[in-house]
Amino acid sequence: MNQPAFPSPTPLGDGEAVLAFDVGGTDMKAALIDPAGRIAEIVRRPTPLEGERTGEAVVAAVADLAAGFAGAHPGVRPAAAGLLVPGQVDDDTGVGVFAENLGWRDFPFRDRASAALGMPVSFSHGVRGAGEAEHRLGAAAPFRDTVVMAIGTGIAGAIFLDGRLHAGGGLAGEMGHSRVAEGQDCACGGHGCLEAVASAAAIARRYSALTGRSVPGAREVLERAQAGDPAATRVWESALDALALDLSHTVALLAPEAIVIGGGLSQAGDALFVPLAEKLDTILTFQRRPALLPALIGENAGVIGAALRARDLLAATAREPAL
Amino acid sequence: MNQPAFPSPTPLGDGEAVLAFDVGGTDMKAALIDPAGRIAEIVRRPTPLEGERTGEAVVAAVADLAAGFAGAHPGVRPAAAGLLVPGQVDDDTGVGVFAENLGWRDFPFRDRASAALGMPVSFSHGVRGAGEAEHRLGAAAPFRDTVVMAIGTGIAGAIFLDGRLHAGGGLAGEMGHSRVAEGQDCACGGHGCLEAVASAAAIARRYSALTGRSVPGAREVLERAQAGDPAATRVWESALDALALDLSHTVALLAPEAIVIGGGLSQAGDALFVPLAEKLDTILTFQRRPALLPALIGENAGVIGAALRARDLLAATAREPAL
Repeated sequence: MNQPAFPSPTPLGDGEAVLAFDVGGTDMKAALIDPAGRIAEIVRRPTPLEGERTGEAVVAAVADLAAGFAGAHPGVRPAAAGLLVPGQVDDDTGVGVFAENLGWRDFPFRDRASAALGMPVSFSHGVRGAGEAEHRLGAAAPFRDTVVMAIGTGIAGAIFLDGRLHAGGGLAGEMGHSRVAEGQDCACGGHGCLEAVASAAAIARRYSALTGRSVPGAREVLERAQAGDPAATRVWESALDALALDLSHTVALLAPEAIVIGGGLSQAGDALFVPLAEKLDTILTFQRRPALLPALIGENAGVIGAALRARDLLAATAREPAL
Repeated sequence: MNQPAFPSPTPLGDGEAVLAFDVGGTDMKAALIDPAGRIAEIVRRPTPLEGERTGEAVVAAVADLAAGFAGAHPGVRPAAAGLLVPGQVDDDTGVGVFAENLGWRDFPFRDRASAALGMPVSFSHGVRGAGEAEHRLGAAAPFRDTVVMAIGTGIAGAIFLDGRLHAGGGLAGEMGHSRVAEGQDCACGGHGCLEAVASAAAIARRYSALTGRSVPGAREVLERAQAGDPAATRVWESALDALALDLSHTVALLAPEAIVIGGGLSQAGDALFVPLAEKLDTILTFQRRPALLPALIGENAGVIGAALRARDLLAATAREPAL
């Protein structure tokens, strides 16, 4: 286990020590947060993929990682944990409803993890957890009405209105499956979904399909477009057109003050944000232009969001009167 | 002045007497609500259109109508008023920011009406006021997360998440200006806006443009489509396609439990709701299907919503401690 420097310019601040788990489709991260809000230790390991037993295996891994932290840091005693998983997640009931690639259906993560760890657990979706970090400590912090989008293998977002998360029973923020184009089949069974056109994975895949030349990711497609490759330009521009169209729908419906974009594609920086703002401006008329901002917290946004939620849980419990 | 039967199956209930004003682009309605929540009197008159002085003229008409009620119903003494106007409306500051057809810019309706009436005034947009009535007393009442849309001359909506209105500084709910089609120019300066394809006015206008045959409204286009007129069928179906596409974006982003549709087009009943639900179902994949419901409150939803807001204002004032 190694201990990197805390990557965020905006630390969690003082509070109780907590555990934070961010489970992804391939890797999971675990962090121990100390009372000063620093990451005492952070660990990444492969997500245990065991078909229908993956939910149980994830809870076992969570318990194992917690035991490792307890042995290595006996002076840091976490009082609660935050756990984030992918797929359809019901924050209120604490249930992982469904995750296509991970095998579980209606798995009671919150209660099972709470029993395994012997402490209260806050449970949510990875994108909402990372969004919480951006909303409280990152690029979205100055705003009351924001959408925090993650564009990587997929596209999803966390919606904060008047400062409050809108989870919609775990089904809100699925703009990755909004129809914004013709023709592209999506893994969800739909057609023309934003995710099938404009995710980092889709950009690479579409370029390979168009040219027969395999590329490792969207970064290479952008580089080739910047070097004048017409096929790469076509794929990149159409992805930005689809993103701008989707953002225009979000603006018309919700009028957010800011839209924060994180995930792999946001690393394109100005090559993404400048033309995206221009394309959005072309579509909009009287509507308020949202600030389009890159996410600030970086790759540990998930564990930081999980830690924030774990501390929220402790604060809420402390407010409840004893029997 | 005449006194119609209260049209809603869900009365306002007991409370203080209030005044309610719903100002539209051509007509304005005023109602006196008695302590039992009944409409003691309701009046409709033309909205005074006086160019840049329209804001002042509306406030003068509001005061005149209130004086008329006071003379006719000396035993009913309103304690507050609700005022709804069209255009871009900032509920929080009480300002009518802009209304293209009505001539005002940044007119302080709430403060001016409050001074003219000598009572506190709650101020909002007509669609949000009518949405409030549907949300509290109508078709949306059983749900926490709903969108209440009005489809008539234009298209706009009121968004309620976790039971709370999201006004977005007066700019939310403008799905009428979401781009969902190619080609149709919109009055807002945009192209392919939902309102330019699928509003009741657009359906009539597009049919006339396509055939050279003038029709008074969308109802006649629907009747001709049902009688087998191919041009009418084309216009009607494309309007429903655009509406279904827009609803699918709303569902992906917000996952509402219900979408309530009012306004002139909703009077088409099953001819609208049945194919619209089918088309929406074809676009969606894993998402939750919202209940698609016709508005219940009817043509007085605006004044009822204004009355609800006026009573809310009194309740909020009563909760504040005295100095």
